[in-house]
Amino acid sequence: MIIDGKRLISNLVRLRKLTDTPGAGVTRFSYGEQDAKARQFLVDRAREMGCTVRADRVGNLRIGLPSNRPGRPVILCGSHIDTVRNGGWLDGIYGVCSALEVLETLAARDGNETAGGDDGLLNVDMVIFAEEEGSNFGSTMTGSKFLTGKYGEEDLDRLTDDHGSAMRKYLERAGLGTEGGTDHQFLDPVPWDLSQAAAMLELHIEQGPVLDRAGIPIGIVDAIFGMRVLEVTLTGVGNHAGATPMDERFDAMTAAAECILAAEATVAADPEKRTVVTIGKIEALPNCSNVIPETVRFTMEVRNRDKGKIDGYTERIAHGFRQIAMDRGISCQIRDHSSSEPLPLDEGIGEVIRQTAERAGIPYRVMDSGAVHDACMLAEAGVPTGMIFVPSIDGRSHVPQEDTKEEDLIRGAKLLLETVEQLRAHPPQRR
Amino acid sequence: MIIDGKRLISNLVRLRKLTDTPGAGVTRFSYGEQDAKARQFLVDRAREMGCTVRADRVGNLRIGLPSNRPGRPVILCGSHIDTVRNGGWLDGIYGVCSALEVLETLAARDGNETAGGDDGLLNVDMVIFAEEEGSNFGSTMTGSKFLTGKYGEEDLDRLTDDHGSAMRKYLERAGLGTEGGTDHQFLDPVPWDLSQAAAMLELHIEQGPVLDRAGIPIGIVDAIFGMRVLEVTLTGVGNHAGATPMDERFDAMTAAAECILAAEATVAADPEKRTVVTIGKIEALPNCSNVIPETVRFTMEVRNRDKGKIDGYTERIAHGFRQIAMDRGISCQIRDHSSSEPLPLDEGIGEVIRQTAERAGIPYRVMDSGAVHDACMLAEAGVPTGMIFVPSIDGRSHVPQEDTKEEDLIRGAKLLLETVEQLRAHPPQRR
Repeated sequence: MIIDGKRLISNLVRLRKLTDTPGAGVTRFSYGEQDAKARQFLVDRAREMGCTVRADRVGNLRIGLPSNRPGRPVILCGSHIDTVRNGGWLDGIYGVCSALEVLETLAARDGNETAGGDDGLLNVDMVIFAEEEGSNFGSTMTGSKFLTGKYGEEDLDRLTDDHGSAMRKYLERAGLGTEGGTDHQFLDPVPWDLSQAAAMLELHIEQGPVLDRAGIPIGIVDAIFGMRVLEVTLTGVGNHAGATPMDERFDAMTAAAECILAAEATVAADPEKRTVVTIGKIEALPNCSNVIPETVRFTMEVRNRDKGKIDGYTERIAHGFRQIAMDRGISCQIRDHSSSEPLPLDEGIGEVIRQTAERAGIPYRVMDSGAVHDACMLAEAGVPTGMIFVPSIDGRSHVPQEDTKEEDLIRGAKLLLETVEQLRAHPPQRR
Repeated sequence: MIIDGKRLISNLVRLRKLTDTPGAGVTRFSYGEQDAKARQFLVDRAREMGCTVRADRVGNLRIGLPSNRPGRPVILCGSHIDTVRNGGWLDGIYGVCSALEVLETLAARDGNETAGGDDGLLNVDMVIFAEEEGSNFGSTMTGSKFLTGKYGEEDLDRLTDDHGSAMRKYLERAGLGTEGGTDHQFLDPVPWDLSQAAAMLELHIEQGPVLDRAGIPIGIVDAIFGMRVLEVTLTGVGNHAGATPMDERFDAMTAAAECILAAEATVAADPEKRTVVTIGKIEALPNCSNVIPETVRFTMEVRNRDKGKIDGYTERIAHGFRQIAMDRGISCQIRDHSSSEPLPLDEGIGEVIRQTAERAGIPYRVMDSGAVHDACMLAEAGVPTGMIFVPSIDGRSHVPQEDTKEEDLIRGAKLLLETVEQLRAHPPQRR
């Protein structure tokens, strides 16, 4: 039994055409117009094959195989369908379309009724997570956090967009998560009852260069990087750019520049070369060419698979920032913005994926992931979780150039299906 | 004869109260609501003392002493009334209110008719320049550029705000510069006929720390810094902040940080310590904490009173930028954004100011100005021009904290009046 590679690619291409911004990648924010189109496309496919479609309060979708039977443990597989602004055509939705392909293949084999006997196979649900990227409210994996109970009703008001509009408003406008307002058949409670979840599988593009550089088509993830994000505000003295001599300046911009370079130099000392630091967001005030910046605010995030290293490097960098600011007579305010713990994935599931790849003769690498994914929220909630990566060409992601070779996309989906089949017949033990 | 210091301060305080944003300084953009209020206040005062009020196409105002007589050369004095965003309460409008004080004092003495004889005194016009700061359209000294013919009709469409709205639209909305739409009595042609302008005097806060640090109450400006502004765009590879190892990055942000520090270090080599470099404006794309910046764009401006030094340092810095970008595998695009030539002011006028200060026993320093002012546009157009500075406390300007001691404000206006009186009786030779 094998997935239909052509259909997989065709679905991905159709979804891209349906929702991209020509020349500027894909901007498909949860609860927006493009998101609604993609959802409709996927729900229509699921309906055609007789699947049940259930939504929850925040728009996570759960799509059940027609042959699922009540009371049996379930294997969840899927990913998210939202993107960053001007992101790529594969991040998230590749895992969703591959899960759809798994359903199509299994549904075609099982039929609707025949698997109702006592074949002993586990149920299979495809999951589509809402709002993974944090594009609307600045909080990542929001859908899976609601789903697993990390977020609750009060967060619908706490989470707001850049203009102060709350997530609750978004849901109302999108007609998602309400009995009357959704096209979906059932409304799941939030959080989901995960006691019957035997496994969670997420197939995703790597979003980094490791597999592509090594020429290896499959990554089996054993651990996820944790991270710590600081928000740094340097405040000097705003002043006229012509009239203020260099030695009379308290320039927040040059201070920020020194901090950014110092952060880069600090992690360069990591002997394993696996600690990463990113200053991704910066804002200067008043941001005029002819005024010395009074304030520069930036984010600094450190990631590693080891919590000790994350904290160690973060503290070292923050200490350096304070020193630089002091030397320049500038005030430095540092606050913890957010963080996530490093997370080991399920060894048993990893072993099943490894053996399945081995049997299929697919080269693989066991690797860690610098990115956090929805699957991690389920892993933290106690669901045995595995992740499969396919290469990202030149390691590019979150940009319009994001791409993966067709053969790699198809190979990943194939391995996903085979892993689901293995797990269906030989369910892993929950820890 | 002496100005009324209390009235000067009272006018400044009333204008601040009329147009400031409580707790956030003054944001009085040309053609906006606050600008209209300030104009009305000043025009009302001028009308009360019987002055003529003329506007031009772009909202520059020219307010003539009641005793002015046709055909006589005129001494212009004034400044601008617009501010930067969240700017101070003195920049520009201090020179305007002081010029108003000059008119009030002279009008009280001359009366309306009596000076009509052959006292041989020159006319005096107060000038209020529109749109000096570039807050609306990113182009500084816009009003005085129109006034002197540097800008013309076509620039009304070329100059646009951040949203693409043209200056022409602003003028229409404000009802400025049109016969029917303005409250002012006459519409001056643009450019003005400056052949009768015997002198231009602008009194302004220093906007730098030189006078305040030295404890000297008056600066007599002999030369204005020129400047060159570059717009620098660094383009690397946007990528996932977790999944991309440090040695696989082409990070536009760390490259920008290195450039900014290098620019600072380059001008630090100036033995006279008078060259200034400012990176005031920065923008990162996509500007998300979890994405390595693909593009960072910033402005870099160099100022000095010597053109050779401006160009020399600018080229050296730009060369350094290209080198840094190349070493980091990042593309670097540098374009000339704008520039202005250094400008010597009129020696004769400077000497009159100097002698006047000397006679009044006011300590002064002959100095250059790092900031460019409207008066420079008139100097370039051939009008003998002088500038007087008063100290800025801690050298702060373009910020809400901008301030000057009351006694210094009054002393500056006093010197302005005495200089006008000197020049009225002994007009300078035009070069």
